[in-house]
Amino acid sequence: MTHRDAIVLLSGGLDSATTLAIASAEGFRCHCLSLDYGQRHRAELDAAARVARALGAAEQRVVTLDLSVFGGSALTDTRLAVPTQASPPGEIPITYVPARNTIMLALALAWAEVLGAQDIFIGANAVDYSGYPDCRPEYIAAFERMANLATRAAVEGHPTRIHAPLIALTKADIIRRGVSLGVDFSLTVSCYQADDEGRACGLCDACRLRRKGFQDAGVADPTRYR
Amino acid sequence: MTHRDAIVLLSGGLDSATTLAIASAEGFRCHCLSLDYGQRHRAELDAAARVARALGAAEQRVVTLDLSVFGGSALTDTRLAVPTQASPPGEIPITYVPARNTIMLALALAWAEVLGAQDIFIGANAVDYSGYPDCRPEYIAAFERMANLATRAAVEGHPTRIHAPLIALTKADIIRRGVSLGVDFSLTVSCYQADDEGRACGLCDACRLRRKGFQDAGVADPTRYR
Repeated sequence: MTHRDAIVLLSGGLDSATTLAIASAEGFRCHCLSLDYGQRHRAELDAAARVARALGAAEQRVVTLDLSVFGGSALTDTRLAVPTQASPPGEIPITYVPARNTIMLALALAWAEVLGAQDIFIGANAVDYSGYPDCRPEYIAAFERMANLATRAAVEGHPTRIHAPLIALTKADIIRRGVSLGVDFSLTVSCYQADDEGRACGLCDACRLRRKGFQDAGVADPTRYR
Repeated sequence: MTHRDAIVLLSGGLDSATTLAIASAEGFRCHCLSLDYGQRHRAELDAAARVARALGAAEQRVVTLDLSVFGGSALTDTRLAVPTQASPPGEIPITYVPARNTIMLALALAWAEVLGAQDIFIGANAVDYSGYPDCRPEYIAAFERMANLATRAAVEGHPTRIHAPLIALTKADIIRRGVSLGVDFSLTVSCYQADDEGRACGLCDACRLRRKGFQDAGVADPTRYR
């Protein structure tokens, strides 16, 4: 069997770890791309390296991009506090990073073009992150259409496919899927303000969603809380 | 008159300087974004700062992003030589940076969202760069459609407009337009391998296109060649 190359966006959280496991199970040779965007939770990047190794990725590269030059998100602007209450329904949380998925997919597109890869995987999820506009299926489809006008590969008849295999799954579904594929979730970090050892606060939106996901899935929560 | 804010992608070359002058003439308060992407021609970044000042931009910010981590272009991969012969017609030149316009527009989109700006200007041009897929009108339109599904602003009813005012102009047209708007082209650097003082090689594709543009426009070429 020959393995086709894919770029997998890997943050070090639960969703992207499961996405990597899915891409591997589909037979792709996975090139993982992590973004150091000045996020507070740098333990995520350590987690991404561990997850890539554990799931047999071909390689992992980290691109550094200081998004805090623009400000505007509690995840990159240290003057804004990370909320410890759930956001009101329908409201976009302050932990939203402007255009983050567009930036990450654009970087993945560049690397895909250099490698000659036609497949890009992203762990975007419309169910638990309904407040994030760039996690919706119509957004993913629009990015794919744009990408297929953007690149040399597209011009030469090798279209890009954007895979978002988690887009319609609940957090509990994602956890069950990951467990079935052998993902060790103790390696992953979801907390928006994890400490240097990757221990979670247990209070932020990301921690709450994750904890509830394990409860709903009936899977023991391996998260290390501080 | 109240000025609306716009993001203007400013490389320091002739095209983006003219684009900034057009955006200013249309009454926009211009926030210039330059990308330090590990390019060889760093004199471009110095030129961008000079051009932003000379044309009265509200501000200029430089985002650092090391695209050489992916390789694949003579402009970022120092193992590849910059060609001094024109590329064959229909062939995409090795100086093409993978997904560069997609990455730059994605960054502009992030900043626009933080500022509450709805307008993004890019100096893309389909005439002289027919080999670059991401300089075509259909690409710009697809990016705009994607952007309007991507952001909080779009969700809240404030669509983004991508302006590419040079898209159908020849290099000579661009130069005439810039001259009529008072652009001092001696401040700009187009050469792919300019030296530290911004002096041009006179041999690369960018130099050839620029020189021919001044000739065709009947405008004295202010470029400093080494």
